[in-house]
Amino acid sequence: MRIVVDAMGSDNRPGPDVAGAVLAAREMQATLILVGDEAQVRAELAKHDTAGLSLEVVHAGQVIEMTDSPTEAAKEKPNSSIHVGLGLVQRGEADAFVTMGNTGAVLTIATLFTLRRIRGVKRPALTAIFPHAAGRVVAADIGANADVKPEYLAQFAVMANAYARLVMGINQPRVALLSNGEEEGKGNELIKATIPLMRELKGVNYIGNVEPKEVLNGATDVVIHDGFTGNIFIKSIEAAASMVSKLLRQEITSGVVTSVGGLLAKPAFARVSKRVDPFEIGGAPLLGVNGVVIIGHGRSTDVGVKNAIHQARRAVEGRVIEAISEQLGV
Amino acid sequence: MRIVVDAMGSDNRPGPDVAGAVLAAREMQATLILVGDEAQVRAELAKHDTAGLSLEVVHAGQVIEMTDSPTEAAKEKPNSSIHVGLGLVQRGEADAFVTMGNTGAVLTIATLFTLRRIRGVKRPALTAIFPHAAGRVVAADIGANADVKPEYLAQFAVMANAYARLVMGINQPRVALLSNGEEEGKGNELIKATIPLMRELKGVNYIGNVEPKEVLNGATDVVIHDGFTGNIFIKSIEAAASMVSKLLRQEITSGVVTSVGGLLAKPAFARVSKRVDPFEIGGAPLLGVNGVVIIGHGRSTDVGVKNAIHQARRAVEGRVIEAISEQLGV
Repeated sequence: MRIVVDAMGSDNRPGPDVAGAVLAAREMQATLILVGDEAQVRAELAKHDTAGLSLEVVHAGQVIEMTDSPTEAAKEKPNSSIHVGLGLVQRGEADAFVTMGNTGAVLTIATLFTLRRIRGVKRPALTAIFPHAAGRVVAADIGANADVKPEYLAQFAVMANAYARLVMGINQPRVALLSNGEEEGKGNELIKATIPLMRELKGVNYIGNVEPKEVLNGATDVVIHDGFTGNIFIKSIEAAASMVSKLLRQEITSGVVTSVGGLLAKPAFARVSKRVDPFEIGGAPLLGVNGVVIIGHGRSTDVGVKNAIHQARRAVEGRVIEAISEQLGV
Repeated sequence: MRIVVDAMGSDNRPGPDVAGAVLAAREMQATLILVGDEAQVRAELAKHDTAGLSLEVVHAGQVIEMTDSPTEAAKEKPNSSIHVGLGLVQRGEADAFVTMGNTGAVLTIATLFTLRRIRGVKRPALTAIFPHAAGRVVAADIGANADVKPEYLAQFAVMANAYARLVMGINQPRVALLSNGEEEGKGNELIKATIPLMRELKGVNYIGNVEPKEVLNGATDVVIHDGFTGNIFIKSIEAAASMVSKLLRQEITSGVVTSVGGLLAKPAFARVSKRVDPFEIGGAPLLGVNGVVIIGHGRSTDVGVKNAIHQARRAVEGRVIEAISEQLGV
């Protein structure tokens, strides 16, 4: 197995990206191909003990910044690490691509310039995987498609279901639509038009509609929404969780008695942070393009990169692309 | 001034509803009209010292439960405290209606059976008022309209702006659309079609689009969205805040050292709870119907009810209905 790692993806590139690849190489039977500025990548690799590891370096002369416009960068930086890395997968020279880089650019370059869509897939979907009360949930779409048709949502369900089953190892994942109420009569016109399509999907355990609270309580393994709603959903959860943690920290350290309490409670904050930390998971797949693509957060640490690489490995082993193609292929 | 209070609204009715009205009557120059089962309301009133207070009781023989279907209850319980109370406002016998009851039923009964819409208003909007980093924000719509047109969103902006200015006392409130990014190119088709309408609104300080994080950081005083997106937005914030608080409490009380910390940190939790407590605010207006209607939470305490009554008083004093009618009236 050959997995491409974008060495220029994270905010602190190429440090965490290269270190994560080295960690992963020690844990798996696979060749890791680091793509980026060759001099920089080799200098970074020299800081690690790589004896006996299967690591390669492929040069890419351009870097796409987080602040770059995805469409402009896709056109104007054809030698970016994202173009070069995805090109290796496109030509069959590698099995998967892992990056902590600009999500919009990855989406554009994968969909329009390199891998393109799996035949039969109408639209690709960006996903998030986040912790809930009793495990993890895959959310799709979180931003690739601000406006969708019912058919697209049904396809997102098929793709996310395949990922949950084959990569996350969930047997018969529960799949739900995000709505403003569980009851049948709730939902907007899009949701109401999607419900009958969901019921017809083969091999998808559609359990109905869920509200945000139920998603966090672990009522479903897969939650489906359009990219606009999903983006608001995910960002609201992040923003609220961060606000409450911050307020509690402030309050705990503001008084004399409570600041002693705060010191003693510090390990608890650390454990909760770790529990809701997206980097522990690694990344989330871009679904619907013709190849395995895992996108992690720009702030990822080496462990985050390593975990994302493991996800890519499991996606290749689980033959997710083949499964999606079988169900949606034309 | 005469304000109607639904005595049968809260989950623990009529206790908090009646106690809240008594508290409010002590603080303001207004007659409070309690609507509900007369025997129950009078028995509850007898528990309080009401000497010198201007309190009236109007009998209503039916009660709408939180679990009742709004449309069915609206038709089948014409003598509910919500029908009777809103009827008093409709006939000019009172100036405002305050309830902790079934939001959907209030919306239906106000819009279709009693007050009806302000002439020129296309759709009424449900709102939420919640605390952010530096004050409070009015969010509209949070559930009355799952599917909207750009024109509706622009009207919601006019109405929420009037409320923020005249009732919350915010000079030139900042008004924004909720979107999946601040940049002009972001948003779904609805948002993109609404932007030009927002720019044309007179007397509305439209500052552009905001993401959930910015709303919680206090970047805007009014945030506008369709009822589906707004419902997901509000419920995601509530669910995430509650989850993080719960996880931290669990973690803090799970170890020996940290549980001592937890005890010491307890006042901090209490202060944060109070700070993000919606009951401190009281309620939020139903905007667009032809009369002042304030809806609070079913779990409200007497202080929550009292605060909601004060909001109603300020809405009457501020002449919000007249202001909306002037700007949107035909």
